[in-house]
Amino acid sequence: MVGNVIVGQSGGPTAVINSSLAGVYKTAKDLGAKKVYGMRYGIQGFLEKNIVDMDEKIRSDLDLELLKRTPSAFLGSCRYKLPDICDDKELYEKIFAILEEYQITAFFYIGGNDSMDTIKKLSDYAIIINSDIRFIGVPKTIDNDLAATDHTPGFGSAAKYIASVTKEIIRDGLVYDVKNVAIIEIMGRNAGWLTGAAALARCEDCEGVDLLYLPELPFDVDAFIEKIGELLKKKNSIVVAVSEGIKTADGKYVFELTSHTEYVDSFGHKQLSGTARYLSSLVSEKFGCKSRSIELSTLQRCAGHLTSRVDITEAYQVGGSAVKAAFEGDTGKVVILNRVSNDPYICTTDLYDVHKVANIEKKVPLEWITNDGTYVSDKLVNYIRPLIQAELTPIMITGQPRHIVIDRQ
Amino acid sequence: MVGNVIVGQSGGPTAVINSSLAGVYKTAKDLGAKKVYGMRYGIQGFLEKNIVDMDEKIRSDLDLELLKRTPSAFLGSCRYKLPDICDDKELYEKIFAILEEYQITAFFYIGGNDSMDTIKKLSDYAIIINSDIRFIGVPKTIDNDLAATDHTPGFGSAAKYIASVTKEIIRDGLVYDVKNVAIIEIMGRNAGWLTGAAALARCEDCEGVDLLYLPELPFDVDAFIEKIGELLKKKNSIVVAVSEGIKTADGKYVFELTSHTEYVDSFGHKQLSGTARYLSSLVSEKFGCKSRSIELSTLQRCAGHLTSRVDITEAYQVGGSAVKAAFEGDTGKVVILNRVSNDPYICTTDLYDVHKVANIEKKVPLEWITNDGTYVSDKLVNYIRPLIQAELTPIMITGQPRHIVIDRQ
Repeated sequence: MVGNVIVGQSGGPTAVINSSLAGVYKTAKDLGAKKVYGMRYGIQGFLEKNIVDMDEKIRSDLDLELLKRTPSAFLGSCRYKLPDICDDKELYEKIFAILEEYQITAFFYIGGNDSMDTIKKLSDYAIIINSDIRFIGVPKTIDNDLAATDHTPGFGSAAKYIASVTKEIIRDGLVYDVKNVAIIEIMGRNAGWLTGAAALARCEDCEGVDLLYLPELPFDVDAFIEKIGELLKKKNSIVVAVSEGIKTADGKYVFELTSHTEYVDSFGHKQLSGTARYLSSLVSEKFGCKSRSIELSTLQRCAGHLTSRVDITEAYQVGGSAVKAAFEGDTGKVVILNRVSNDPYICTTDLYDVHKVANIEKKVPLEWITNDGTYVSDKLVNYIRPLIQAELTPIMITGQPRHIVIDRQ
Repeated sequence: MVGNVIVGQSGGPTAVINSSLAGVYKTAKDLGAKKVYGMRYGIQGFLEKNIVDMDEKIRSDLDLELLKRTPSAFLGSCRYKLPDICDDKELYEKIFAILEEYQITAFFYIGGNDSMDTIKKLSDYAIIINSDIRFIGVPKTIDNDLAATDHTPGFGSAAKYIASVTKEIIRDGLVYDVKNVAIIEIMGRNAGWLTGAAALARCEDCEGVDLLYLPELPFDVDAFIEKIGELLKKKNSIVVAVSEGIKTADGKYVFELTSHTEYVDSFGHKQLSGTARYLSSLVSEKFGCKSRSIELSTLQRCAGHLTSRVDITEAYQVGGSAVKAAFEGDTGKVVILNRVSNDPYICTTDLYDVHKVANIEKKVPLEWITNDGTYVSDKLVNYIRPLIQAELTPIMITGQPRHIVIDRQ
């Protein structure tokens, strides 16, 4: 397939999303693509023809290596949902006109659920107008909530970060011989995969967190307080991991129980935060002991200084496999990861119909959560463990991780 | 000097406080100490004879290596201030009786300002009663606010963590093509050293933070809002670093401008937090743009996964030098770090009269802060830069940093 290809990044950044970009770029060049274009800020920038020639941005093997180790979307990202084709045909005409102008033969979009929706709509439109441009989705999300794929690139590194710093926070809590409660707030709107990763803190050298609340089950504030009371009788330092998205039985977010300024993004997703803060203040009021809330915040998605090598490698592989698929004639597909074996861990890539995954949120199976909803089973731990293995340390310059930036001389 | 020695850890933990413990233990053994005892939870545990034999806890060279790389006080810590000798002579009698019981000839205390106060009082009392037990302080604090020493072990690693994750947070903010403000809250009650470390994010591949507020100067809320307004006209993504301890001109903590539950520790230090949250909500109210607060929280003091090798080495050195000094007959001293040269960086240890450092807080010199109080000069950056160099990576087991724990089979 001779011609040019284009690649974009969409949705929330991850620590390894650029490794997928590196995989797309390198494989496309190796397979003979004339030009590899990058769209700035996803489809939103594409619509403004904010398009760059990747050869000008990646000038050496060192650049490519830095790209793999640079967190957050190199090309920039967006949260832009394409309208349905029937609602805005002109927009699709515009997109395909730009694709034609740049002589694009294949379009790659690295993202999560919302991005797969983009691939679905664009590939549908291509069929309607008889275009032979191929559209392939490259999975990415720390949330791990994409259907069909065993897991998503980005999740492993976020899980490794969470599992590692949770151990450090637990150690920190053991320092004083006084009662104290720490509540760690972890990302995950509706799916508890990331919060579940805190369970990996429990190992030979660490007792682990005491309680773990996922958004898959309703959260009972009274039962929580009762649990804390029981634990405080038995031990000094208590650490709890909660998902930012936990809700009470009547469907209210826990953080909504307190006053809070909300921010709603263009997909209508509420920005959640304040869950741990609310629970922490409840605990200190109720028990009069020291209690602190720790929001892992943006670092869980952008901590390039602590990534999983398994994750970063798989992120590269899904990028490369997407290109290979397009060059072999596939379209309207998403690359998925297929776990062949857990022990030893072996994983391959595969292709899946994007229509069957877009807009479906994969949650933690309820049977992987304990009956009282305060911990997870070994099944979840065994599922996550292989994904956090090994490291790809950043290239450290003058004591700090070095990144590659898109606008440089 | 034949006999036993004892070592304790006090005050807030750091990522390298155990490297100092390793330095004390190893040097004491090498110099012929019979027993090296460790007090659990500092002087507080000592008073309850909560004392361990370090040989039972450190059983191999691997243990010693793990100890160096394990964050947070291995022996446990306390915030316990000794009363003045004239106020509670009995307590001192009790302490010296325990020291005699364990045949202690030298006492080492790893800590910050409050811990140096303990060394001062105990060495004073020893002179009064004609005891020849030696008391030596080993400096430790992420805050870097100890007088006489060029810097304190613990600061370099905290600074490296702050400088590195600030780069990652800045990258994260650049992902979307929308206006957004992030406010990072950094530890430091009265001294702005740690917040100043955020200035190191500015380097070849990073614009750095836009504003930087240290507690050394009064904070003007209106001027801050005006600055943000100016910046928002010029660029999309703004990142601000603030010390948790910034105060307005009338002496009020900024976080006190909002409702907040306070916690006061036994030294009468208020637990501060909420500064960034308050400023972030002000920004989003005023400008209607996305604004988030990020508290670096406990991780800045316990991130064993990202330490400075310079720092961890110096932490070991001050521990070893303390032992050497005691064995040579010194007492009532604190080990200090003496920067011989900045470029190339060369640093030695020295001894200093503990009476001259206890309870003196070293702040960032005002001439190292820009006139408008919104950034720091290169002098501060050049002072910090050598301290964050090189890494000592954790020993990673099953994908997470491995630590050594005191209670194991």
